This record gives sequence, C-alpha cells and structure tokens, in this order.
Amino acid sequence: MYSFKELSKLFAEHFAAKHFPEKPETLYEPGNYFLSLGGKRIRPVMCLMGNELFDEINPDAYQVGTAIELFHNFTLVHDDIMDDASLRRGKPTVHAKYGSTVALLTGDVMLIRSYDYLNSIKTEYLHKVLSLFNKTAREVCEGQQIDMDFEKQENVSLADYIEMISLKTSVLLAASLEMGAILGGASEYNCKHLYEFGKNLGIAFQIQDDYLDAFGDPEKFGKDVGGDIKHNKKTFLMLYALQAASDVQKAELKQLMQDNSADKVEKVLAIFKACNVDAWANQLKEKYYQTALNHLESIAVVSVRKKPLLELAAFLIQRDY
Amino acid sequence: MYSFKELSKLFAEHFAAKHFPEKPETLYEPGNYFLSLGGKRIRPVMCLMGNELFDEINPDAYQVGTAIELFHNFTLVHDDIMDDASLRRGKPTVHAKYGSTVALLTGDVMLIRSYDYLNSIKTEYLHKVLSLFNKTAREVCEGQQIDMDFEKQENVSLADYIEMISLKTSVLLAASLEMGAILGGASEYNCKHLYEFGKNLGIAFQIQDDYLDAFGDPEKFGKDVGGDIKHNKKTFLMLYALQAASDVQKAELKQLMQDNSADKVEKVLAIFKACNVDAWANQLKEKYYQTALNHLESIAVVSVRKKPLLELAAFLIQRDY
Repeated sequence: MYSFKELSKLFAEHFAAKHFPEKPETLYEPGNYFLSLGGKRIRPVMCLMGNELFDEINPDAYQVGTAIELFHNFTLVHDDIMDDASLRRGKPTVHAKYGSTVALLTGDVMLIRSYDYLNSIKTEYLHKVLSLFNKTAREVCEGQQIDMDFEKQENVSLADYIEMISLKTSVLLAASLEMGAILGGASEYNCKHLYEFGKNLGIAFQIQDDYLDAFGDPEKFGKDVGGDIKHNKKTFLMLYALQAASDVQKAELKQLMQDNSADKVEKVLAIFKACNVDAWANQLKEKYYQTALNHLESIAVVSVRKKPLLELAAFLIQRDY
Repeated sequence: MYSFKELSKLFAEHFAAKHFPEKPETLYEPGNYFLSLGGKRIRPVMCLMGNELFDEINPDAYQVGTAIELFHNFTLVHDDIMDDASLRRGKPTVHAKYGSTVALLTGDVMLIRSYDYLNSIKTEYLHKVLSLFNKTAREVCEGQQIDMDFEKQENVSLADYIEMISLKTSVLLAASLEMGAILGGASEYNCKHLYEFGKNLGIAFQIQDDYLDAFGDPEKFGKDVGGDIKHNKKTFLMLYALQAASDVQKAELKQLMQDNSADKVEKVLAIFKACNVDAWANQLKEKYYQTALNHLESIAVVSVRKKPLLELAAFLIQRDY
C-alpha cells in the first residue's frame, strides 16, 4: 500500500497530461494556466486511497480522480468570479487575468471535461460513480449559494452553518473517498462508513481552519491571521461567540463588525477569549474528528489497510499548532 | 409516426415536471423561472425524431431530450451573463432578475442536472450518448468563445464564420438527432448521415436568420429588422459584403459601422443590395439545405419514415418570406 505522499506523486505524474485541446487557445489556455497554479490534489488522492482501502488500485481511479480535480478547479474558477477574487495561490485568478466572460466559459468547459474522464471508466461502474458525482456536484453548488445567502442574513444558526460547510467542502472529500471505494469493489455498508469518515473529517478540518485563522501562529499557519475577522466572515467562532457572549459583548461584536478600526482583530479576539471560543472550537473539532475515526473503525477491512487514511486524518487535523 | 407538432406536445408534457429540488430556493427558483419562459424545445423534439426515424420511441429518448433542453438553457443563462442581456423571450433574464452570481450558479446546476437525466438511461447506451453529449457541449463552448473573439477581430473569413456558427448552434441540433438515433439502434453509417443532415440544416437556418434580420418582412419576421446592422454584428451578410464590395463601398461600410446615424440600416442595406448580398445569401442557404437533404436521402431506412424530418426541414427553411 502507498502512503498519501506516494499517491500524491503518482497522481501528479498522471495529472500532468494535457487536459484540453490546442484550439481555440483563447478558451483553453486559461484552463491550462489555472491548472498549472498547482494545489495539493487532496481529493483525487483521497479517491486513490478509498480504492486502495479495499483492493489494488484500479486504473479507473486515476480517471475518476482527474474528473474530481477538474471539477474542484471548475468550482474555484467560478467562485473567484463570484467573490471578485484577484489572487489564488499567489497568482492572478482566471477572472483577474482574462476577464469574467473567459473565466465563465473556462469553468464551464472544465466541468464538461470532467465528465469525459468519468465516461472513460469501465461501464460496470459508470452509473454508480456518475450518480454520486452528480449528487455531490449539485450539493457543492447548493453550499456555495447558501454561503452567499448567509452573507446577507443577520442570524445564522450553528447547525445551518455546519450544514452549509458540509455541502460546500466536506461532501466532495467524502465522495472522493467513496468513488474510489466503489472502484475497489467495496460493499454499500463500507462505502457509507467511508463517506461519513470523509464528511466528518472535512467538518473537523474546517473548524480547525477557522480556529487557525483567529488563533494560529502566523509563522506556522502561513496566512495573515485574523483575515476572517477583518472581512466580517461568519465563521464557526463568530457564530458561537454571538451565542455565548453577554449582551454587552454581543453589542460590541456587532459594532466591531460594522467598522474597520485598526484594533478590530485584537478586540474581537479578546471577546472570543473571554467567551472561551477557543476551547469550544477545539472541543467541537475533536468531536467531529472522533466521529470520523469511529466511522473508519466500523469499516470491515483488516486494520492495516486503514493506516494511510489514519495518517492522513492525523496530518490534516494537526493538534500541536 | 408522429409529426413535429405532436412530438412537441408529448415532450412539453414530459418536460413540465419539476427539474430541481425545493431547497435552497435561492438557487433553484431562478432555474424554474427561466425554464418557465418557454421556448420551442426544438432540440429535444429532434432527439425524439432521430429515434423515431429508426424505431418506436425509446422512453430513454425523453430523458436524453430533457438533458439536451437543460443543457441548451444552461448555455442561454450563461450567454446572457456574457452578453449582459436583460431580456430573453420578452422577460428579464436570470442575470437581470437575480444578479450575475446567482445566474452563474443557476447555469452550473442546470448543466449538472442534465447529466442526471443522461445517467437515468439504460447502461448499454450510456457511454455512447455521453461521449456525443460531452463532445457537443465542449464544441458549443468553443463556438461561444470564438464568437466573442470575432467581435474583437477586424477580419473574419467566411469559412471561419461558418465554422463558428456550426460549433455555436448547428452541432447541438445535429447531436440531438444523433442521440435519438443511437437510442433507436441506428448504425454508425446512418448516425453520421443524420448528424450531417442536422448540421447542414442548422447552418442553412442561421443564414436564413441573418437574411431575415436584414431583408425580412417585419410583420412576418416578428423581430425588429436591422438589429444585426444596428449592433455591428458580423453576420454572413456583412462578411460577404466586405468581400464583394468595391473599395469605396467597403470604406463606407466600415464608416457606417463606426457611427450610429439614424439612416445607418437603410444605407447598409443599400450597399448589401448593390453587392447582391441577398441573392448570394439565398444561394448559400440553398446549398446547405440541399446538402442536408442529400444526407437525409442517404440514410438507409424506408422513405416514409423520413417524412417528419423532411417536413421539419421545409418548415425551418421557409422559402416564401
């Protein structure tokens, strides 16, 4: 069996192929540009891991992984238009570099291309993989829409936020694992537990991401700390704080979210700490992480096969930051 | 066998079903709205006709027809964003009514939904239908991109324009027929001739559309005549005129395209007539129409089965306007 790192290397070699025709260059060059910006290719590697949990890697898993990665990049290209984002991985977005009409079509053709890769797998798996892929693709769009709706909504419950995050990010991780499992011949029972493992791990990862944005060590985190607070993003932390805070603190938080004073991050963090938001977030993350591990535990294969996934989970949910 | 009109009615009944889930309403209501604006549903009916040319209608043809119609509507929703169009079928576009971010996601989810319908057909046809669907979808995006590129290009050859029109509009008509034929068990040979029938008919139809926009009787045409001229659109007529005109006429045409004088349409039409653009366009249309009919003729089925398609072709290419 391969480690996550080894599979990443194998997938990267496979994914280095050309994904688009030469012409018209005005349509396909932007797509090649965006794919060249890189990324960790976590989802396709999870597809390979989901396969290898049950059997030797089926060559079709590389095709499905490619489809998943193209789908993921399609969502990024379109999200960048919606968010009017100018940078992605430190480089101009397609939207910023080529304009929004080109970015729109680039995303469309990337999504269509992902279905070509799906259509290249053995017919016996096609229907099942396509069902899960389509359902997941729809859910990711729903998550994106709900996220945009939340921006305009004053009160968002924690449960609704978790549902949104789950749709927007976790279901694709979960489905990547399950599509691999399908190609590995896994039973329905095992597929479902693997899906839940991925979904809960994804939620735990997102809680951690929100946590690190507020409380992370800037040097280790590698991003500007407090970005979510500066942009008034509704995160796990902010939603909990708005619930747990006293009336005075609540009023202060709402006031802080309305202006952009220089000490905004500092003041919001002080309220977060006073409300024990940090401890609460760690507990919530731990809860989803443990749920994920329980689902992995339930999968009926010898435990040695689960090792790479356990390592991946521990790597994603770092406890020493 | 059914006539085009009967099949339109049958398809409309089928298509009246709900195509999206209830929630989130912010994502799916705009899609329902757009589909409610109607349309002639020509493409799915062509799919049914392609099927019935060879055999009784396979229920899967309704599913594939639905996928084709959703795909077509996806292109319209996204094109309206790219063209910043405010009206479609006399009603506000999704883009105008709900904003461009909602329109972007509405289109995305419509495209994804079309693959759900494809995935509902019998597995034995899935691979072949999906191949043709994906290839066509890619080509439609290419046609749209090339069309946008042409807007910025000074010289566009007639051959390049025909290639663009073919990608942007004809290949979907052609593929609709062929997907139906596949479900009707047609041979490769018959599929190819049917595809070419649709492709050439589509080009003839587009030439006619350009012709009517300039020379049509406003009452019969039902649209504002001269719209293409007012908007400086590169049409079959304009491209030919720029080739056939004298240097003096060419200079006048280019001058007219740069300003928006009140008598612009009148003056451009005068040059068109002086260059015999109208007679040329009718000849070109006739050429593609005859090529289409020759391909239909070549299809190896008893001629009585071809009657509805012949009627459709004659209806689309009206000669008495």
